[in-house]
Amino acid sequence: MSLSPAPIVTDGIVASLYLERLRAGLPGREIAVCVLPDGEQHKTLVSFTTVIDRLIEHKFRRDCCIVALGGGVVGDVGGFAAACYLRGVDLVQVPTTLLAQVDSSVGGKTAVNHPRAKNMIGAFYQPKSVIADTATLTTLPPREVGAGLAEIIKYGLIADAKLFAWLEENIENLLALDPAALELAIKRSCEIKAEIVAEDEREQGKRALLNFGHTFGHALEAIGRYERWLHGEAVAIGMEMAANVSAELGWLDRTERERVSRLLAKARLPHAAPGVAADEVLEHMQMDKKIARSGLRLVLLEGIGRAVLSPAPERAVLREAIERQLR
Amino acid sequence: MSLSPAPIVTDGIVASLYLERLRAGLPGREIAVCVLPDGEQHKTLVSFTTVIDRLIEHKFRRDCCIVALGGGVVGDVGGFAAACYLRGVDLVQVPTTLLAQVDSSVGGKTAVNHPRAKNMIGAFYQPKSVIADTATLTTLPPREVGAGLAEIIKYGLIADAKLFAWLEENIENLLALDPAALELAIKRSCEIKAEIVAEDEREQGKRALLNFGHTFGHALEAIGRYERWLHGEAVAIGMEMAANVSAELGWLDRTERERVSRLLAKARLPHAAPGVAADEVLEHMQMDKKIARSGLRLVLLEGIGRAVLSPAPERAVLREAIERQLR
Repeated sequence: MSLSPAPIVTDGIVASLYLERLRAGLPGREIAVCVLPDGEQHKTLVSFTTVIDRLIEHKFRRDCCIVALGGGVVGDVGGFAAACYLRGVDLVQVPTTLLAQVDSSVGGKTAVNHPRAKNMIGAFYQPKSVIADTATLTTLPPREVGAGLAEIIKYGLIADAKLFAWLEENIENLLALDPAALELAIKRSCEIKAEIVAEDEREQGKRALLNFGHTFGHALEAIGRYERWLHGEAVAIGMEMAANVSAELGWLDRTERERVSRLLAKARLPHAAPGVAADEVLEHMQMDKKIARSGLRLVLLEGIGRAVLSPAPERAVLREAIERQLR
Repeated sequence: MSLSPAPIVTDGIVASLYLERLRAGLPGREIAVCVLPDGEQHKTLVSFTTVIDRLIEHKFRRDCCIVALGGGVVGDVGGFAAACYLRGVDLVQVPTTLLAQVDSSVGGKTAVNHPRAKNMIGAFYQPKSVIADTATLTTLPPREVGAGLAEIIKYGLIADAKLFAWLEENIENLLALDPAALELAIKRSCEIKAEIVAEDEREQGKRALLNFGHTFGHALEAIGRYERWLHGEAVAIGMEMAANVSAELGWLDRTERERVSRLLAKARLPHAAPGVAADEVLEHMQMDKKIARSGLRLVLLEGIGRAVLSPAPERAVLREAIERQLR
């Protein structure tokens, strides 16, 4: 019995760093490598088609197992290709960025972007396994580390006040890539995400809490053409906006509101999107796929560690909450 | 509470015949219509993207329900778009061809073709309901009726000797679109398919029997660039080839082998693919996605009404079985 073929989807940078090591770990398998261009602006149907073309060229069959080696873009494109190729083949995620290790590789969401909005075309498709090696983070650019920290901070904000407090004490260790701190933060993040997804895989309810800061963040990413901010950076600004709304409604007190901004700043994340118009953000938010017919809903905070899904407040409140982070 | 928006995916011919009637049946809903070009050669990622673009343009959200009004191409493209748009929205199939009513609208397979092979990119995605109105068959070109009959004959061959015998007596009534005969044949076909799919949705085993004649047929369709034969016509020739193999192995006796050809001929289906080379068919069969690592497997007959999945015979036998239907 021969071993399943393992087509590898990766990008140029990750390939130069880790492809040979991965290949060495897969002896006796038929391998093919599909190298995608790097960056969120390439999370498109074009990249998806590139992967599919490569799979067909090698005549891979239903018994192959796609290995997605890289960050969120590779995981999303490779994962969506695994979901669709021959109506579904096996998938293993090997995330090499902090963001992918704590967020995108876990939970089975795969997608590509449309020019008009993020993640419009995709599938819920669970990987057979996720292999996260924290040693790969040592080659990650500092901006990417920060972008991953934004999602870790998010988990504290929505579900775990203790994690948030721990982050306030340990954010410097994480920025310095201290292995013990990383392991704790990644493990706890994956636990929180897995618990929520296990309850609500298809995002009918509770999973929506994972989108804290994301409705604003997705709008900013689209406005910045997926180039100005990394996903985590846009989410950081979005979490500030969502915290503004929560504070404005009186749900988050002044001290808590300040703790949010202080921790994000300590993680060296951007807090503002100068040059963007509030109306542009509002327009893009209407396009966000999370919006049901019942109207715009937002994930807001009732306190640090306690998120709720709530109908959006009136436009003036929303607008003010956005504008504070545009200057 | 407002009714779900209902984007309609259809093609130009079906739209001119039935769109207004469907629209009249959906009062109070937001409607948008996406008209695809007609024909299997348009079952592509380009058509898929056209549907997605239209959905995004109208800002449809997760609560919309795509209605696929038309034949197999519309059902497959519309169904795959429903599977992927926002990672999945509701789908209702309204098949208007005999082939779609007895086959493609039931069972949840959706896909688009790749230039190198059929149905390479898709999803298993069950519709919320399938609404088959036999009155729509009165506007179907006769060739399309025959193509649908090919699949009905297939159900008899693989699973129901009584249905096959009934078809031998009633094929003329079906060709004349007798409503009672159609209802019986469509109902029994859907029952057989639903039973098999309920046992094995993801085609790990028994569902493969539904592909009787299809490994050969898909190869012919690709060789004919999806223009020379309708799907059911290519499958009819493929069933002849599969019957040849079954007879060659001594599983199907001479009388039964002749009954297969006679019924297909009575349904006015083609029995041969002149001008095609056997090697070309064999090469395309290697590309068929049904082929597992263990090698080419074929659905063969142990008798009328009894199909089995079997390793393919040696190349010479396969070649001879193909060649008989090329002249």
